[in-house]
Amino acid sequence: MTPDLTLRNILEARERIRPFVHRTPVLTSATLDGLAGARLHFKCENLQKGGAFKARGAHNAVFALSDAQASRGVVTHSSGNHGAAVALAARNRGIAAYVVMPSTATQAKQRAVARYGARVTLCEPTQESRESTARRLIAETGAHFIHPYDDLSVIAGQGTSAIELLEEVPDLEAIVCPVGGGGQLSGVAVAAKALRAGIRVIGAEPAAADDAQRSLRAGRLIRGGNPQTIADGLRSSLGELNFALIQAHVADILTASEESIVQAMRLVWEIMKIVIEPSSAVAVAVLLGRPPPLAGRRVGVILSGGNVDLERLPWP
Amino acid sequence: MTPDLTLRNILEARERIRPFVHRTPVLTSATLDGLAGARLHFKCENLQKGGAFKARGAHNAVFALSDAQASRGVVTHSSGNHGAAVALAARNRGIAAYVVMPSTATQAKQRAVARYGARVTLCEPTQESRESTARRLIAETGAHFIHPYDDLSVIAGQGTSAIELLEEVPDLEAIVCPVGGGGQLSGVAVAAKALRAGIRVIGAEPAAADDAQRSLRAGRLIRGGNPQTIADGLRSSLGELNFALIQAHVADILTASEESIVQAMRLVWEIMKIVIEPSSAVAVAVLLGRPPPLAGRRVGVILSGGNVDLERLPWP
Repeated sequence: MTPDLTLRNILEARERIRPFVHRTPVLTSATLDGLAGARLHFKCENLQKGGAFKARGAHNAVFALSDAQASRGVVTHSSGNHGAAVALAARNRGIAAYVVMPSTATQAKQRAVARYGARVTLCEPTQESRESTARRLIAETGAHFIHPYDDLSVIAGQGTSAIELLEEVPDLEAIVCPVGGGGQLSGVAVAAKALRAGIRVIGAEPAAADDAQRSLRAGRLIRGGNPQTIADGLRSSLGELNFALIQAHVADILTASEESIVQAMRLVWEIMKIVIEPSSAVAVAVLLGRPPPLAGRRVGVILSGGNVDLERLPWP
Repeated sequence: MTPDLTLRNILEARERIRPFVHRTPVLTSATLDGLAGARLHFKCENLQKGGAFKARGAHNAVFALSDAQASRGVVTHSSGNHGAAVALAARNRGIAAYVVMPSTATQAKQRAVARYGARVTLCEPTQESRESTARRLIAETGAHFIHPYDDLSVIAGQGTSAIELLEEVPDLEAIVCPVGGGGQLSGVAVAAKALRAGIRVIGAEPAAADDAQRSLRAGRLIRGGNPQTIADGLRSSLGELNFALIQAHVADILTASEESIVQAMRLVWEIMKIVIEPSSAVAVAVLLGRPPPLAGRRVGVILSGGNVDLERLPWP
């Protein structure tokens, strides 16, 4: 059964989060259009507060809580961007935030979480360690758990970027969006298909972490292991709510090699003059595949975040 | 006598260049506001076509030419951004472009010029060598010379960013804009003062290349030597038309140390997720000085460009 998430929920989310997040710009690049053989419209969630789309879902989830629910703070686990977003949302609501991060999270992401005043607890870089550490914190503090993606409030918040994108470019024929846990892709897909039934929503995933593609093609949720990809924001396994919404609304999921992800990242920095993280570059890498998968189309591209260690760039 | 450049010329420039340039976004950052103690509105000319504001002036100058004037192409000399912009404008008009570049121009800037189809001639990194090489090309080709800044058509084009910025944020109290040759600062100042008489327009200059500050304070044009600054776009000496307009409309010019320029550049990349070149960072560095020079004010900041060699970043 498809989870009960509608455009109305996403429109409500948009009103709820409006005071706290940026309406991010939509940029275009004639050079990248040429390379993709398409008209690309980049929704720049890397320019969102906290440097990633996660501010949307986190603010919706934190501000949808009742005062009683919120009173003991919020807990989450995150490779970084969601953690920073929950930290910021909690600070904006004036409540405590506890963030479990894998010890492999980039320094930039750890700094961002700490900057917003959250308490960081490091754990092993596995799903099991994240979850057990979060459970321990919940038991200790009584704080409310906000899952980074497998949560309808979070999904509704992430979907708000698609509303803004389609307001600005109403005649898009497709939207390409990275997929890790699936919070953003599922929210974007619900919003986009409700606003424009004929649109194709396409997930973009590292070939080295292709659990979403395999799940969609098999028709059942296949969990990833502990995938090794430079796209650190996309190492999570697809969530259950997310998978169900993706099955209902997403046309396909395409993958990109590690090398093509780095090349696409480098290209966007040089040509568009914006800092994107590898997870965002996956969507661009997919569009630049040979042959280009959306040649001749008007395409929205979600650039999901820009949190990278500037001292450790993946080129010489 | 103040050169004859009015808001009307800049409004005409805006219509002339509209099909060819981006209306660049205006971004804000709560973190940078905190550091500057001010409300900052960043006009992102680094996201302009060609990666710099220069696309504005170049398109105005190239498209203001009569067909007869344009027929043999255009020549310019440039450390890079203006050269790329003239190359692009010439391609858009379908005429030839000859660009003289100092041999020290960054690889990214040389590539950008070549990508737009211009013929590049390298020269020694001195003003004399640039000018003599350009004169030789004019003699050989009969092409029309477009000075990178000391030209009223170019200045009018550069001023168009201030119109857009004030449309978006009408109640600015100040605008801070980098100054090298002064093309952008003089255009921005004419437009901003005409639209909002009480606004303070402030130039930002590397302390190591402070000919504009010294000129403004001395009341006469003092030429720089061959300044050594990381802000490669600001090594030019102030132009004559530019100086006269700056004397008439600019409140002050503030300087930044080389170290503070690099720090500001790093900070903008990490916090705002945009690629700016050192010349842009000079404006940010000035605002982050101690004590902050515009504390409590609503300030427009022109981020003039983003063309850097991604392989040679000025941090470890």
